[in-house]
Amino acid sequence: MHFEAFSSSELAAYLKGIPAVSARLGDDSELQVVEVGDGNLNYVYFVSSARDPQRSVVVKQAPPFLRLVGESWPLPRERMVREVAALRRFGTLCPEHVPRVYHADCEKYLIVMQRLDSHRVLRQGLTDGMVYPQLADHISTFLARTLFHGSDLYLPADTKKTAVSGDINAELCRITEDLVFTFPFEDDTSNVYSPALPAAAIERLRTHEPLRRAAGEMKWAFMNHAETLVHGDLHTGSIMANEHETFVIDPEFAFYGPMGFDPGAFIANLLLAYYARDWHDHMAGREPAAYQRWLLEQVEAVWSGFAQKFAQIWRARERETGRAYIGGPADTRAAEAFREEFMRRLLEDTLGFAGCKMIRRIVGMAKVAEITSIKDETVRARVEVRCLRLAEALLVQRRELASIESVTALARQVLAHAVDI
Amino acid sequence: MHFEAFSSSELAAYLKGIPAVSARLGDDSELQVVEVGDGNLNYVYFVSSARDPQRSVVVKQAPPFLRLVGESWPLPRERMVREVAALRRFGTLCPEHVPRVYHADCEKYLIVMQRLDSHRVLRQGLTDGMVYPQLADHISTFLARTLFHGSDLYLPADTKKTAVSGDINAELCRITEDLVFTFPFEDDTSNVYSPALPAAAIERLRTHEPLRRAAGEMKWAFMNHAETLVHGDLHTGSIMANEHETFVIDPEFAFYGPMGFDPGAFIANLLLAYYARDWHDHMAGREPAAYQRWLLEQVEAVWSGFAQKFAQIWRARERETGRAYIGGPADTRAAEAFREEFMRRLLEDTLGFAGCKMIRRIVGMAKVAEITSIKDETVRARVEVRCLRLAEALLVQRRELASIESVTALARQVLAHAVDI
Repeated sequence: MHFEAFSSSELAAYLKGIPAVSARLGDDSELQVVEVGDGNLNYVYFVSSARDPQRSVVVKQAPPFLRLVGESWPLPRERMVREVAALRRFGTLCPEHVPRVYHADCEKYLIVMQRLDSHRVLRQGLTDGMVYPQLADHISTFLARTLFHGSDLYLPADTKKTAVSGDINAELCRITEDLVFTFPFEDDTSNVYSPALPAAAIERLRTHEPLRRAAGEMKWAFMNHAETLVHGDLHTGSIMANEHETFVIDPEFAFYGPMGFDPGAFIANLLLAYYARDWHDHMAGREPAAYQRWLLEQVEAVWSGFAQKFAQIWRARERETGRAYIGGPADTRAAEAFREEFMRRLLEDTLGFAGCKMIRRIVGMAKVAEITSIKDETVRARVEVRCLRLAEALLVQRRELASIESVTALARQVLAHAVDI
Repeated sequence: MHFEAFSSSELAAYLKGIPAVSARLGDDSELQVVEVGDGNLNYVYFVSSARDPQRSVVVKQAPPFLRLVGESWPLPRERMVREVAALRRFGTLCPEHVPRVYHADCEKYLIVMQRLDSHRVLRQGLTDGMVYPQLADHISTFLARTLFHGSDLYLPADTKKTAVSGDINAELCRITEDLVFTFPFEDDTSNVYSPALPAAAIERLRTHEPLRRAAGEMKWAFMNHAETLVHGDLHTGSIMANEHETFVIDPEFAFYGPMGFDPGAFIANLLLAYYARDWHDHMAGREPAAYQRWLLEQVEAVWSGFAQKFAQIWRARERETGRAYIGGPADTRAAEAFREEFMRRLLEDTLGFAGCKMIRRIVGMAKVAEITSIKDETVRARVEVRCLRLAEALLVQRRELASIESVTALARQVLAHAVDI
């Protein structure tokens, strides 16, 4: 299974041959090709017109392996087909928050899409202490529209079943099943522990029964609850944003899964950033409190915004068709009681998934930069212990945590509580 | 889409041409063909050798419509492909409780299988007050083996996902979605109400919020939780039994769904028989108490047997592979804690599905003979009200009903409580 990445001139020649792309870049100029080295899974290139650098696109190509590791970790190239399908589906539902696809080549497993050149990866922005006034509104809109419209609350039952069948994504799901739901809780060779992380914290992940049971339940839900087409990897590295715009990228993990998985991933990453904050503001000579407060406000705003918008689209849909999902006319008290309980259970799932996502970023193979960049090992381990403490509470208490405000209150308590390292 | 059923001579000639069937029936004899008129969905024939009637088979053919209704209710013939696949899969897992398939013709949508000529449909046997000493043991074995081996607890994740995708059964699932989970709770023209059934009981199904919410949750689970290959229609009319043997037939509704659906259907039908019992024993001049006790013992025995066997197969599997589903080695306390909670949630689901199944048999289109055969309208309505009362309790209290014994205790309370009609 030999694979050779494009040379710059090969890629330029290839793109010149595609009218939709060529028109965008301009026919009359040399093309500049820059490989972007930060893709975990894929090769990514910025291609622009040498004469008018404003004219540019992104090219993403899937090699038959995990790029981060190399040919020793084979990965089917069909993942690009899933990514293209998800980009198009999400783009139809939410065009203002999904990059446009200009061209997809299912033989070369390659996609050409909108260049987001005035946007930064959200994780970097958060690490630098940037404030994004539209972020929670945009992400909650993205979540509400995509999660609702892929589900049985919107699609005819047979259309949804066909979509479930078509959106099986076994190889990439397996990565999540292993790295998020299994390996962090056992003595797996892929785990990476910070030197100062107390052995007791690691041991607790393997033996604390309520935590293990809860994590097992989330694994079961991930593998079995085919509720909607989820993005499947919605951390802050899968979002590009500036003050005015927010884009969700990289949906190669998309599959029919539980609705809480995407909001859980996003909230988990805000909470990781929250605990890492002290260090980054300390290094920059700033007080962390204001930005910490802003981060927790985003946790609250993204959930509240999502829950409100989701319920609103749902009510509108039932009024439009005249029927409630549970049967009978729209707008009955019974329909509303079902909706309320549905949203409560969705929060419960969201918190459980958030807990698993936080744990994997602390002890698993793939870390987050805002924590790995903490140079002081003791400080870093303290941050990690706090992340694990909150994650455990989210998992074990997810049924009792009846509101997002009780979640942020808990996050503050964990920050206030000393870590003895 | 014109369809003409086989004439007897056409069917005989067709079967003569199939070596596997012809060998079973004997080459040297005329064949007797008898159409059995009791199929709701399909044409069913008994075919036997005129010379040696012991040599016989069953032939089942799917017309392109619901046979019970006729051409006005079209139904894709591919349902026979699903039935054949499920019979073979269940037969591999549980050969002693599934009829053997001798021949399947995917162009004629026809199957030739084992004739069960010393067995009766269980529903008829129960109505006649027959005792089946092996029933609970056999059905609990069938449930444990089939539900376990179709799930992620046994299959590799990618095999299971491929199975989910292949076992989409949209048209037949839709019948269940409508007739079990939706129409009974609204003013649908397909509903059929007994003349003496109080209007308040019907109204309650449409307006009582906790009941509507619970039924909606079961509908969501049915449509979304792709846990294992379920039979999908495991009522007492889908079982043929005698004192020594038990066979599960008619899995055309099979699909990847929630594990609790099959035990729920079976238990629901035992409970319907329980409330109908007074009348049938009264007509036969017998005391009902002994058989009522036996029926509730079967409810307890089938659940306990299933739960014990399922957990046992699961433990054995984890020991064999050395790994627990939740990660880490087999036989840890955490793995056992997860298993216990898993079985508790499975009972919860089972009771919720049982409740929905009971309700649809009272107010929906498809009834059960042990209740429709009650000639006295007042007596019948009293039986129906009791069925609805227990069904509601199972749905609404399913999380609190922590054991199967508390379910049978509740069933007895509902029987003891007067119905004022």
